[in-house]
Amino acid sequence: MTERSLIFPTQEYRDRVARLQAGMGAQGLAALLLTTPDDIFYTTGFLTRFWESPTRPWFVVVPLTGDPVAAIPSIGAELMGRTWLHDIRTWDAPDPRDDGISLLVETLAESVPPHGRIGLPMGPETYLRMPQAGFEALRARLAPRRFVDATACIRHVREVKSDAEITKIREVCTIAGHAFDRVPDFAAKGRLLAETFRDLQIAALAEGADWVSYVAGGAGLDGYGDVISPAGPQVLKRGDVLMLDMGAVKDGYFCDFDRNFVIGVASDTARRAHSALWRATEETLDALRPGLRASDVHKMLCDSLQKHGAVPSGGRLGHGLGIALTEWPSFTPLDDTVLRAGMVLTLEPGCITRDGRIMVHEENIVLRADGAEMLSPRAPEDLPEIGT
Amino acid sequence: MTERSLIFPTQEYRDRVARLQAGMGAQGLAALLLTTPDDIFYTTGFLTRFWESPTRPWFVVVPLTGDPVAAIPSIGAELMGRTWLHDIRTWDAPDPRDDGISLLVETLAESVPPHGRIGLPMGPETYLRMPQAGFEALRARLAPRRFVDATACIRHVREVKSDAEITKIREVCTIAGHAFDRVPDFAAKGRLLAETFRDLQIAALAEGADWVSYVAGGAGLDGYGDVISPAGPQVLKRGDVLMLDMGAVKDGYFCDFDRNFVIGVASDTARRAHSALWRATEETLDALRPGLRASDVHKMLCDSLQKHGAVPSGGRLGHGLGIALTEWPSFTPLDDTVLRAGMVLTLEPGCITRDGRIMVHEENIVLRADGAEMLSPRAPEDLPEIGT
Repeated sequence: MTERSLIFPTQEYRDRVARLQAGMGAQGLAALLLTTPDDIFYTTGFLTRFWESPTRPWFVVVPLTGDPVAAIPSIGAELMGRTWLHDIRTWDAPDPRDDGISLLVETLAESVPPHGRIGLPMGPETYLRMPQAGFEALRARLAPRRFVDATACIRHVREVKSDAEITKIREVCTIAGHAFDRVPDFAAKGRLLAETFRDLQIAALAEGADWVSYVAGGAGLDGYGDVISPAGPQVLKRGDVLMLDMGAVKDGYFCDFDRNFVIGVASDTARRAHSALWRATEETLDALRPGLRASDVHKMLCDSLQKHGAVPSGGRLGHGLGIALTEWPSFTPLDDTVLRAGMVLTLEPGCITRDGRIMVHEENIVLRADGAEMLSPRAPEDLPEIGT
Repeated sequence: MTERSLIFPTQEYRDRVARLQAGMGAQGLAALLLTTPDDIFYTTGFLTRFWESPTRPWFVVVPLTGDPVAAIPSIGAELMGRTWLHDIRTWDAPDPRDDGISLLVETLAESVPPHGRIGLPMGPETYLRMPQAGFEALRARLAPRRFVDATACIRHVREVKSDAEITKIREVCTIAGHAFDRVPDFAAKGRLLAETFRDLQIAALAEGADWVSYVAGGAGLDGYGDVISPAGPQVLKRGDVLMLDMGAVKDGYFCDFDRNFVIGVASDTARRAHSALWRATEETLDALRPGLRASDVHKMLCDSLQKHGAVPSGGRLGHGLGIALTEWPSFTPLDDTVLRAGMVLTLEPGCITRDGRIMVHEENIVLRADGAEMLSPRAPEDLPEIGT
């Protein structure tokens, strides 16, 4: 039990923090302030679903040299005490008079000189998980110290996964793959879409997921209207394309891939769209290399879809994956991130099948020096026909 | 399917927005800016697990008069289009050049005059779900308009639940109660705590939960070390007190209560602690009335625990409940919130059983004009002995 909350050996965290500190040095940061579940899990191994409660802010300070310091509500002291951190400071939260701000001022002041700079993730795909009024008080009390955006620093380190992380992501992808294998057992004509969502979560748990943070999907003739809705009281009908998309979690690591099925016999439209999505994915898997830009991958997927007669949908066509369901970079025309070996990515081409209907296909991979390596079990080339 | 994303009839949302607008008027706010899953669900009925992706910010603007306006990523247009909102503006997110900021500036400027005030939840139990750099750009571009803290305004409205909301919370409490009834079927000597956590989630889904956002707990002789840890590879042993705490979700509404069991025969310490927790809850249930302060309830629970020979644990001993696992107010000595009829609350007394061990008991209630009404099925007075 004492080892569990660490997830990894301490050296893994030391390596992460050393990489962060190298980036901090280059940017002239005296400390990094982390407030989100992901950044705190990444640096400490502190994993809890208690983040679901918005009541209390939590802080980890990474100084330019030395180990991180936790400044957290006392309810987390026991669990944080099982991580590799040794300097854990607590306050009795929630405290409406001062919810950790004085403790954090003191902690930051120890490692940041009066004219020093404190890095904080402030850019794309970040947020500050503490009350805005608390942050403004913190900033005023620490002046003339300045807060500067450290998104690039964090992102550069988190984007490239260690072998230990890749092993975890492969494990949860395998669990989700087994859960998707069970779909023909429970998705059928006449069943509710909501029941299908429930049964997929049950299957993922039964296969070994710790929890299931994300399920979305849709069903309809020739495709579905969107990909983020919860399941309504819709009844599955013969000819429906059923898409299920899942973010299951094991030891804090996510998978994020979907599977398409047809209830009964696929329409030509659905069959052609699935084939184009599958082939666009296949061709991109073959071509993926470090050094390409995220925007190149977007173009590759679109070009390939068009070559196979499909109309690409808008939005991003894949993204980073790891301790969050979605991470940097994004496969869009606007993201010029250079891909590096060790990045874990989703390929998520989508196409418009007819007015108001789309189909989306998704796989998870790790990028190696010589190309893509599958983490999700590859979807079948032909749209599976099930459940009549 | 088209009605589902609304959860409630449109009038429910109109009433909520009217109550918010009354508060805004009293505070001199020209608009309210909402960014979190909870505040956006509350005002619009927009429910999706896609919030799990941190990539995109989402905005809803509540003007002082008229209906709310959504300014959201285009991926959400279809789902938001099924809510009661009619003014839905979108941008193609993620856009690293301008992730909705220009659209939001334009939207806010329509309802806020140049010297007007924009309310934003900035206080306890809130955060701003958008990049801090985006907020700072927004603030600069909207000047001389000012952002002011609107936590009290939102909180005052959200704290008191409508009958429709109470019905939803009762429903999910009932589902969780049925799931807890199954614990003796799967928790037993020799099983892993992690398996027990999985089986409880499976049971909640099988009983009708849409998803399970929170499970925590612990097991040990005479109690457990903390109440927020995920399950480790710990094997349940004869004599262990097993506590399982769950936040299941149905139609966007949470339950949050726990149950204690003993594997085999309870120690005198565990039995006495459970009895004190049960009686302190019973006495507080009897005494709870609108007009009491949150701090009074904390004192009531502590006094009652002590009267029954138990040592109260630190931290808060209950809280609000609804569209989040935990909401305002908090039963602590520092929270002077006056309780009102219609508040849905947890009573969560905890006691120290011996060095480093605690036990916690939790129930969910709605406060009526004449007192507490149970929403969770009342825990048995005697600690259930199971699983040998």
